[in-house]
Amino acid sequence: MLRFRLLSFSLSPISSSSSPVFKPHTRNRFLFLKKLSSQMGSYTTASDSQLSGSKKLLFRQLFEKDSSTYTYLLADASHPDKPALLVDPVDKTADRDLSLVKELGLKLIYAINTHVHADHVTGTGLIKSKVPGVKSIISKASNAQADLLIEPGDKVYFGDLFLEVRATPGHTLGCVTYVTGDGPNQPQPRMVFTGDALLIRGCGRTDFQGGSSETLYKSVHTQIFTLPKDTLVYPAHDYKGFTVSTVGEEMKYNPRLTKDEAGFKGIMENLNLAYPKMMDVAVPANMLCGLQDVESKAN
Amino acid sequence: MLRFRLLSFSLSPISSSSSPVFKPHTRNRFLFLKKLSSQMGSYTTASDSQLSGSKKLLFRQLFEKDSSTYTYLLADASHPDKPALLVDPVDKTADRDLSLVKELGLKLIYAINTHVHADHVTGTGLIKSKVPGVKSIISKASNAQADLLIEPGDKVYFGDLFLEVRATPGHTLGCVTYVTGDGPNQPQPRMVFTGDALLIRGCGRTDFQGGSSETLYKSVHTQIFTLPKDTLVYPAHDYKGFTVSTVGEEMKYNPRLTKDEAGFKGIMENLNLAYPKMMDVAVPANMLCGLQDVESKAN
Repeated sequence: MLRFRLLSFSLSPISSSSSPVFKPHTRNRFLFLKKLSSQMGSYTTASDSQLSGSKKLLFRQLFEKDSSTYTYLLADASHPDKPALLVDPVDKTADRDLSLVKELGLKLIYAINTHVHADHVTGTGLIKSKVPGVKSIISKASNAQADLLIEPGDKVYFGDLFLEVRATPGHTLGCVTYVTGDGPNQPQPRMVFTGDALLIRGCGRTDFQGGSSETLYKSVHTQIFTLPKDTLVYPAHDYKGFTVSTVGEEMKYNPRLTKDEAGFKGIMENLNLAYPKMMDVAVPANMLCGLQDVESKAN
Repeated sequence: MLRFRLLSFSLSPISSSSSPVFKPHTRNRFLFLKKLSSQMGSYTTASDSQLSGSKKLLFRQLFEKDSSTYTYLLADASHPDKPALLVDPVDKTADRDLSLVKELGLKLIYAINTHVHADHVTGTGLIKSKVPGVKSIISKASNAQADLLIEPGDKVYFGDLFLEVRATPGHTLGCVTYVTGDGPNQPQPRMVFTGDALLIRGCGRTDFQGGSSETLYKSVHTQIFTLPKDTLVYPAHDYKGFTVSTVGEEMKYNPRLTKDEAGFKGIMENLNLAYPKMMDVAVPANMLCGLQDVESKAN
């Protein structure tokens, strides 16, 4: 059974607007259901809500060239405070991202990672140091440090929009995938931020950081390929210049994940990839939410 | 007064499906208006048509890393033949683009350039050699060779969707900008493919190929900044990892185009840029629709 937990950032004038609230499980299930119910009352037809849903979401895909990393900016543009979050920010491009957030008049509340990256240093530490009040998020299963440790079934709210957390281990043991909500006021088609679990026509390697090809195969097939086929796939990396795919496309054309499990394992065991260049720098830094935290602790 | 011309690719079973028809002016004005009228009859409300419009368009942004070029794939996914076009394809990534076209079940009919590029060789020649029937398009003002030479006010149809041609010289003398239609069955918000005339928070250089900072300033202000503010801006390049902007954003934050004309000219005259590395290879090739054409003529 799915567990519902709510990561809500209170934006009412009474409570502090710089302290995201991580509510305990039982109460949040109630809050989540109540929230959904009140949203549903605002719309009468499916097509109207789809249109409204997509108009509410302000979305930007951003690229960091050295590590070919995609960072995603999402905001609820219909909310008075325009609360926003960044998925997989990179330290090198943190200033670019923050400048964009400012120009668009957004209030950044979360800096989120899909997993402990081995190829770049996360921007979360730097962002937190530059924008007080921003909370870092990573999965509890990653064993990394962050302000909020999320678990499968959790919902990360930004305004009236939310990302649902799905466990997709296999590239690392703590990988999660974030999916936009399936409520009537959420973006249509849905969008899935897959980290390195599923790349466009590929997937992340499985030979480090608790990786397992068997686990990754199950993760993608049970947690991502079960989404509607028109769900837009936004990965953490692309090395060929693709920006987006769909679940249906990857189910049909992903050269690795379309194989059976044995075939997939065979491919992953014979990739013969070099040791990740940035790994020995990036992983220790990312376990602490970015190199900036490591440095500040050392001083 | 706007001139209406129609670039229509006949997809009826009677006529040849591999010969785009470039109709003369007078007749096409009639055809264009007739086409629009029949589309309008299908929809009853603004919100419905907006939703349908965006659902009809299959859109992909593709990146070529060496020259930081964006190629755009657009198709009418609701049309039985899924007619498609590529804007600013690059020779190096032509195979990637054609593979995607095939996987998505599209029928590529046009390979279009915004201008004669100086930093990469266009993919149009290679694409034409690999996919018989595809027609290359460039502006008449560019003085380059292509199957179809378009002029301001022309409309390039792919299925029931179209791109409108706007003259935006200044980076080169033949630069054009393509804008998705403003009809009721066209994508909302509109999308503008600006080539190098307007980049995200920047613009193309004006010191080669008949460039003129004065002309570019007028082009952007009269042809692009007059579009609705929510129009999505898709440039031919980005060097900082941005993928999209809006007209409203550029009107507010573009560090060059927000200046007055004298200020803009001053900036452009003092960029002190190096001679374009690829220019002596790319421009002669692109004047003939891609190096492949040059090679085949030489053999």
